Amino acid sequence: MKILVINPNISESVSTLIQAEAQRSASPGTEIAVATAPFGVAYIETRFEALVGAYATACVAAERHGSYDGVVVAAFGDPGLQGIKELIDVPVVGLTESSLMTAATLGQRFSIIAISPRIKAWYRETVERSHLVSRLASIRALEEPLRDIGSVQQDYAERLKALCNEVVEVDGADVIIIAGAPLAGLAREIRGELSVPVVDGVSSAIAQLEGLIRLSPKKATKGSFAAPPVKPNQGLPEPLARLLNRRSPG
Amino acid sequence: MKILVINPNISESVSTLIQAEAQRSASPGTEIAVATAPFGVAYIETRFEALVGAYATACVAAERHGSYDGVVVAAFGDPGLQGIKELIDVPVVGLTESSLMTAATLGQRFSIIAISPRIKAWYRETVERSHLVSRLASIRALEEPLRDIGSVQQDYAERLKALCNEVVEVDGADVIIIAGAPLAGLAREIRGELSVPVVDGVSSAIAQLEGLIRLSPKKATKGSFAAPPVKPNQGLPEPLARLLNRRSPG
Amino acid sequence: MKILVINPNISESVSTLIQAEAQRSASPGTEIAVATAPFGVAYIETRFEALVGAYATACVAAERHGSYDGVVVAAFGDPGLQGIKELIDVPVVGLTESSLMTAATLGQRFSIIAISPRIKAWYRETVERSHLVSRLASIRALEEPLRDIGSVQQDYAERLKALCNEVVEVDGADVIIIAGAPLAGLAREIRGELSVPVVDGVSSAIAQLEGLIRLSPKKATKGSFAAPPVKPNQGLPEPLARLLNRRSPG
Amino acid sequence: MKILVINPNISESVSTLIQAEAQRSASPGTEIAVATAPFGVAYIETRFEALVGAYATACVAAERHGSYDGVVVAAFGDPGLQGIKELIDVPVVGLTESSLMTAATLGQRFSIIAISPRIKAWYRETVERSHLVSRLASIRALEEPLRDIGSVQQDYAERLKALCNEVVEVDGADVIIIAGAPLAGLAREIRGELSVPVVDGVSSAIAQLEGLIRLSPKKATKGSFAAPPVKPNQGLPEPLARLLNRRSPG
Amino acid sequence: MKILVINPNISESVSTLIQAEAQRSASPGTEIAVATAPFGVAYIETRFEALVGAYATACVAAERHGSYDGVVVAAFGDPGLQGIKELIDVPVVGLTESSLMTAATLGQRFSIIAISPRIKAWYRETVERSHLVSRLASIRALEEPLRDIGSVQQDYAERLKALCNEVVEVDGADVIIIAGAPLAGLAREIRGELSVPVVDGVSSAIAQLEGLIRLSPKKATKGSFAAPPVKPNQGLPEPLARLLNRRSPG
Amino acid sequence: MKILVINPNISESVSTLIQAEAQRSASPGTEIAVATAPFGVAYIETRFEALVGAYATACVAAERHGSYDGVVVAAFGDPGLQGIKELIDVPVVGLTESSLMTAATLGQRFSIIAISPRIKAWYRETVERSHLVSRLASIRALEEPLRDIGSVQQDYAERLKALCNEVVEVDGADVIIIAGAPLAGLAREIRGELSVPVVDGVSSAIAQLEGLIRLSPKKATKGSFAAPPVKPNQGLPEPLARLLNRRSPG
Repeated sequence: MKILVINPNISESVSTLIQAEAQRSASPGTEIAVATAPFGVAYIETRFEALVGAYATACVAAERHGSYDGVVVAAFGDPGLQGIKELIDVPVVGLTESSLMTAATLGQRFSIIAISPRIKAWYRETVERSHLVSRLASIRALEEPLRDIGSVQQDYAERLKALCNEVVEVDGADVIIIAGAPLAGLAREIRGELSVPVVDGVSSAIAQLEGLIRLSPKKATKGSFAAPPVKPNQGLPEPLARLLNRRSPG
Repeated sequence: MKILVINPNISESVSTLIQAEAQRSASPGTEIAVATAPFGVAYIETRFEALVGAYATACVAAERHGSYDGVVVAAFGDPGLQGIKELIDVPVVGLTESSLMTAATLGQRFSIIAISPRIKAWYRETVERSHLVSRLASIRALEEPLRDIGSVQQDYAERLKALCNEVVEVDGADVIIIAGAPLAGLAREIRGELSVPVVDGVSSAIAQLEGLIRLSPKKATKGSFAAPPVKPNQGLPEPLARLLNRRSPG
Repeated sequence: MKILVINPNISESVSTLIQAEAQRSASPGTEIAVATAPFGVAYIETRFEALVGAYATACVAAERHGSYDGVVVAAFGDPGLQGIKELIDVPVVGLTESSLMTAATLGQRFSIIAISPRIKAWYRETVERSHLVSRLASIRALEEPLRDIGSVQQDYAERLKALCNEVVEVDGADVIIIAGAPLAGLAREIRGELSVPVVDGVSSAIAQLEGLIRLSPKKATKGSFAAPPVKPNQGLPEPLARLLNRRSPG
Repeated sequence: MKILVINPNISESVSTLIQAEAQRSASPGTEIAVATAPFGVAYIETRFEALVGAYATACVAAERHGSYDGVVVAAFGDPGLQGIKELIDVPVVGLTESSLMTAATLGQRFSIIAISPRIKAWYRETVERSHLVSRLASIRALEEPLRDIGSVQQDYAERLKALCNEVVEVDGADVIIIAGAPLAGLAREIRGELSVPVVDGVSSAIAQLEGLIRLSPKKATKGSFAAPPVKPNQGLPEPLARLLNRRSPG
Repeated sequence: MKILVINPNISESVSTLIQAEAQRSASPGTEIAVATAPFGVAYIETRFEALVGAYATACVAAERHGSYDGVVVAAFGDPGLQGIKELIDVPVVGLTESSLMTAATLGQRFSIIAISPRIKAWYRETVERSHLVSRLASIRALEEPLRDIGSVQQDYAERLKALCNEVVEVDGADVIIIAGAPLAGLAREIRGELSVPVVDGVSSAIAQLEGLIRLSPKKATKGSFAAPPVKPNQGLPEPLARLLNRRSPG
Repeated sequence: MKILVINPNISESVSTLIQAEAQRSASPGTEIAVATAPFGVAYIETRFEALVGAYATACVAAERHGSYDGVVVAAFGDPGLQGIKELIDVPVVGLTESSLMTAATLGQRFSIIAISPRIKAWYRETVERSHLVSRLASIRALEEPLRDIGSVQQDYAERLKALCNEVVEVDGADVIIIAGAPLAGLAREIRGELSVPVVDGVSSAIAQLEGLIRLSPKKATKGSFAAPPVKPNQGLPEPLARLLNRRSPG
C-alpha cells in the first residue's frame, strides 16, 4: 500500500516532522512518500493561505497521480480536500477530517489545540464544513508569535500541555485534538500526562486512510464526488489538465 | 489484536452473517470473536428494543472483559454504545457510528438503506446523536414485512439495489450506507453495480476499530467518558458490578 | 387518576423525597404510587448508569402495568423514557422533558442546576435529544463530591442558591430548572428568594402528566411510538415479554 | 381558578368555538371567560395580521388585568405571546406553544394541519421561534379558499382527515397538531379514527395553563421576562399605560 | 428617490439623530423624510415594547403610503418589519436586518454593541429570526441605566469604544455592529480608532434600501410576502384598512 | 468609483454577459472593468473547479491591485471570496453572497435556479458557508447537458421560467435567485412574468458593492479578515507575493 502525504506548505522542516510521524503510525507494508508544496507559504493560518495551498496540493496530487493508493492532505484545515476528492480516483483524507472522525469516535465533545490565535477562525470554519461544530467544545491556541515553525513542540511544550488541561477542566472536552502539522507527533509524547484521549492529525490520517484503502470503495461516477465533467480548460499544469480531460468510465 | 463483536440481538443467524463479514474485512493477525445477546429480541427496530439490547450488550461486554482489545456493538443504531464506552477501558465502536465516519470521509451527504419502515425513526435519532443529521440525504427502507431476518439479502436483493439507486438519483446522496447487521456483506457484493461508494457497517467498524487500537488512545480519567464514579449499586450481574466497583486509576 | 412514579435508582431516600414532592403537587383525587428500581446504582450521573436505569425502569413499568393511568420516570436525564413510551399504552413523562416543557413556556432561555460536574454531559445530551439545546443558557453544578444523596438540599442550600443567581446574572437565564430527584422540592422552598421562575422536575412532571391524562390522547398504532412489532424474544422478565407479545389493536 | 381566553381576531363565531372547547377541557372549578379582539381581522394568516392581533390582544389583556389567574392567547401563531408574558404577572400561554409542548411530550416528530396555504409560512416561523422546527415533520393545509371561517370543520371534515393520514403515512409524524382556533374541538371528534395522537390547541392550552397556575411560578423580576422598565410613553390605551407605569416590585 | 424613515419610538431627540445620519449617508438625489411614532415608548428594549412599536410603525407606513419609494424601520430589532413588508408594495428594510447583511458581507462573525443589558435578549431573538445567530460572536451592552436617550453617545463614548475592543479581542468578532438608533452616527466617528470594520444601522439601511430601490424588485403576488388576503376587518385606522382592503393585482 | 469584476472562468462569452448586466445595473459615475481568468475551466460546477477558479481570481485581483475601489468575484459559488477579502484592502463581494443578502431582505425563504444538476451540491455548500441554508427552500436546475454556455438563456428560456414557477408553487420560495454568471440579466427580462421577486447575481453584487464602497468600511487590522501575517513564501506570481509581503499598517 503506497500513501502520498502532501504538505500544502513550503516548509521542509514541517515535512520532516510529518514524515516521521507518518512512518511511526503506518502499518507494516505501508510505503509513505512525503511531498512538499512547490509554491505557497511557510504555514497556513488564513483562508487566503489555504486557497493557495489548495491549488498547490492539487498540482502535486495530479503530478504524482498513478504512484499512490491514497493521499493525505497534510495541513490542518484540509486545503483543497473536497475538490481533490473529486479529481482523484483513490481515497483522499485530510488532517482535520481524520482527527474529527477519530475524536468523534472517542468521545462526544472535543477541543482543538492550535499554534496561533489567527488560525482559530480558519479551523472553526473547517469544523463547520464537517457539520460537527456543535460538538466542538473549544479551540485554544498559543498566543505568542512562533519562534520557528520547525520547533514549536520543543519551544512551547509546557504551554501546550497547559492548554490541553484547560480544555478538559474548563471547556468540558472529552477528547483533545492537537492540530497542525508542526505539532505532528506531540500527542504521542504527552498522552501519558493527559487525562483524556489525545488525537494527532497525521497518525489519525494514516490510520483512516489505511482503513479506507482496505475497504476499497468505488470511485463515484455519479453524485457530487464524481470527476468534474469534461469541458474546455486552459492554462493549467499538464498533469492537472490531463486528469480533467479524462472521460469518466461511469 | 483481539476484537469482540457483540450482536445485541438474539438471532444466531444474524451473528453468522456478522462473523463472516467481520472475518472478511479483518487484517491478518486480527482475531474476531462474535457473541450473541443472551436475552432480547430477534432484531432491533425501535427505541424500546434498543434499550433492551443496550443492557444485554453491556452485560456481554462486562462478562468477556479482559479477553479483547476492542469491542464492536454490532447492531445499527448502536444500542448502549456511549454508555459502554464509559464502562470499558479499550476502544468501543458501533456499526452506525463507524459507517457515518467512513461515509463522511467519502463524501458530503449520505443516505441510509434500511430493512423496515419502522426502523427509520430510530436510525434518524442515532444520526442526530452524532450531530451529522444535516448531512443525511435520506433514509429509505424496504416496505414489506421481512420473510426471514437471516435471508433478507437474498430475498430482497433487487429492491435493495433499486433503493440504492434512488438515493443517488433522487435524494442526492454522495455515499450509500447499507444499514443493519442482517445486511452485513451486501455492500461488498453489489458495490460494482452502484454509481457511488457504498459503506457496510461491519467492515467499517472493523476497519475503524483496528485503526483505533493501533493508535492506542488513553482511557479517559476525566471528562464524560471516564469510568462512572464508584458508588453503591445492587442487583447487577457480577461482572458488571465488578467493573463499576473498580477504582479508576486516574 | 393513578400515577406510578418510578425512581430509576436504588436509593430509597431519594424515593422518599420524590414521593413527598409528588404528593404536594398532585391535584385532589390523584393517587401517587412510588416504586424504586430493584437493581442499578445509587444515583445516575453517566450514560452507562442511565442505560442500566432505563432497563430497570422498563421492568418496573411492565410489572405494574394495568395499575396506573400514567407513568413518571423520576430521574433527570429521563432514562429509557422514549422506549417506555413505545411499550406502554398510557402517557409517560420524564423529569427532564417535563421541566423543559414547563421552562419553555415560562421563558425563552433556561439554565439547569445540577448536583455534580460529571452529570453535566449527560444532562446536556438529554436536552439535545429534545432539540431545545439552543435555548439552554447553561448548566451549572455543585463541584464538591456529595456527602449524602438523601440530604443534598440541606447540605448545599446556600451554594445551590448562589448557582441559581449566577445563571440569571451571568448566563442570561429567564428560567431556572433545578435538576435531579435528590433536589425534589427545593424549588418550592427557595423560589421566593429568586428573581426568575424556578422549575422542579417532580412537580412539573405531575402537572404535565395530569394534564395529558385528562386530554386522554390515543395510543399510537402507527408511527414510531406504536408498540414494537411482535417478534421472537427470549430471556426477558415475564411482564416485559407479555407486553411485547401483545398484538397491537391498531 | 379564572382563565381569560383572548381571541386575537374579530370573529365572534370563532370565539364561540373556542369557548365551547375551552369549557369541555377545563377542570371542575376553572372559570373560563372568552374575549374577542375589538379590532383587527377575521382570522390571522400572515405576519401583518399577527402584528395587528398582537396589539389587540395586549390591549384586551391589559384592560381585563386583575380579573384572571392566567391568559390564553387563542390564535395559532401566538400573536404577541412573548411580549404579553413580559407585561402580565400571571402565566400566559398560546395555542401553538401549548400544542408544541404537548406534542413534544407525546412523540418526537409532529405535523401541523392548517386551514389555508397562506398560513403555512407564519406557522413555520412560529415553530422556529420555539426552536422545535427540527422536530416538525410537515405542515399540510387545506388548499381551497374557505367558505366560512365558522364552519370549516363541517365543510372540510373529510379533507382534514385525509391530511391527518398523509402526515403520518408520508411525512412520518408521530403526533398531529390540528391548528387554528377555527378547528377547535375537531381533534376531540376525529381522534378515534386516526392512528396517532392528535393535539388540539385550545384544550392543550387550558391543560398547560391550569398546570402552570397550580405550580404558581414567580413573576420574573430579572431576566428578559421581567416587566418592561418604566420609561416615558404616550398615546397608549389607559390600561396599557397603567401596567407599563407600575414600578416592578423586584 | 424618496425614503421614509420611521422611528418606532416616541423620542423626537432620537429621530433627530436618525435624520442626521440618514442624510449623511444618502446618495445625492435621495430625499429623506423622518417620521416619529405617534404612540409608544421612549425607546424599545423588550418584546412587549417592540409589539407596540410594530403597530405604531405600521400605522405610520400606511398613513404616508404613496409618498415614498421605500421605508426604513428605524429601531434595532426591526419591530414589525416582516409584517410591513407584506403590507407595502415598495421595499422595506430595518436597522438590524441591514446591519446583519452588511456585516455578513464584511466578515464571518460579528458582535453587537447595545445600550442596555435588557435589550440583549430581544436583539438576540432578532438575529435568530434572520437565521444568522451562529455567526453572532457576542452581544455586549452598557451596564448602567442611561442618563438620557438623546445623549448616549456623548455620555458613554469611552465605554462604548472599550466594548468594541472587547468583542474583537475576547469574542473573536470580525465586524462590529453598533446597535440602536440612539447610537446612530457613532460608528462614523470612532471607526478610525477601531481595528475591524464597524457597521451603523441607519447608514446600512439607507445604503441597502437605495440599492434595492434601484434593483426595483417586483412586489410578490404569491408566497408569504404577498399582500394579506382581503377579508373582513374592523376598528383599524382608515389608512391601514384601506391598504388591507385593496385587491391584489396579482 | 471603479469596480473590477473578475470572471473566475475562461469563457469570454460569459464575461460579455457579465459586463452587459454590470453596466446596466451600475449607478452613473461607476466605472466597470471586467477581467477573465487567464487559466481554469469554461464554467464552474464542482468543488475542484472552484478551487482552480479561486486561485485564478486571486491572481487577477492581485495583478490589478491599485486600479479599483472594489472587486466582484463573478461566479456563483464565490470561488476564493473569503480568502480574497483577507488579501485585498477594499470591499470584495461575490455573486452568491450578494444574491443571498438581497434575497434575505426581500423575503424569508428563497430558492436557487441553476444551470446543471452537478452544480447543486457546490451551491448548497456555498449557502451553508453563509449559514443561511435553513432559509433555502430548494435548488432546482436544468437537467439537460448545456448546448453552449454563452446562450443558455436563449436555449432554455421556457424551462427556466417553469423552474421559477415550481419553486414558488411547490417549494414555498418567497424569492427566486437565478444563479450563475451565464444567466446574468435573465432576471431582468422575465421578472414581469413571475409572481415573486427575482434576484440576479451580477446586479445584486454591483448594488451591494456600490453601497459598501460608499460606506467605506475600514480594512480590518485584527480579526480573521486582517491581511495574512507576513511570513516566508515562494513560487507565487509577483503581484501576489508583493501583497503578501506588505506589512499591515495596523
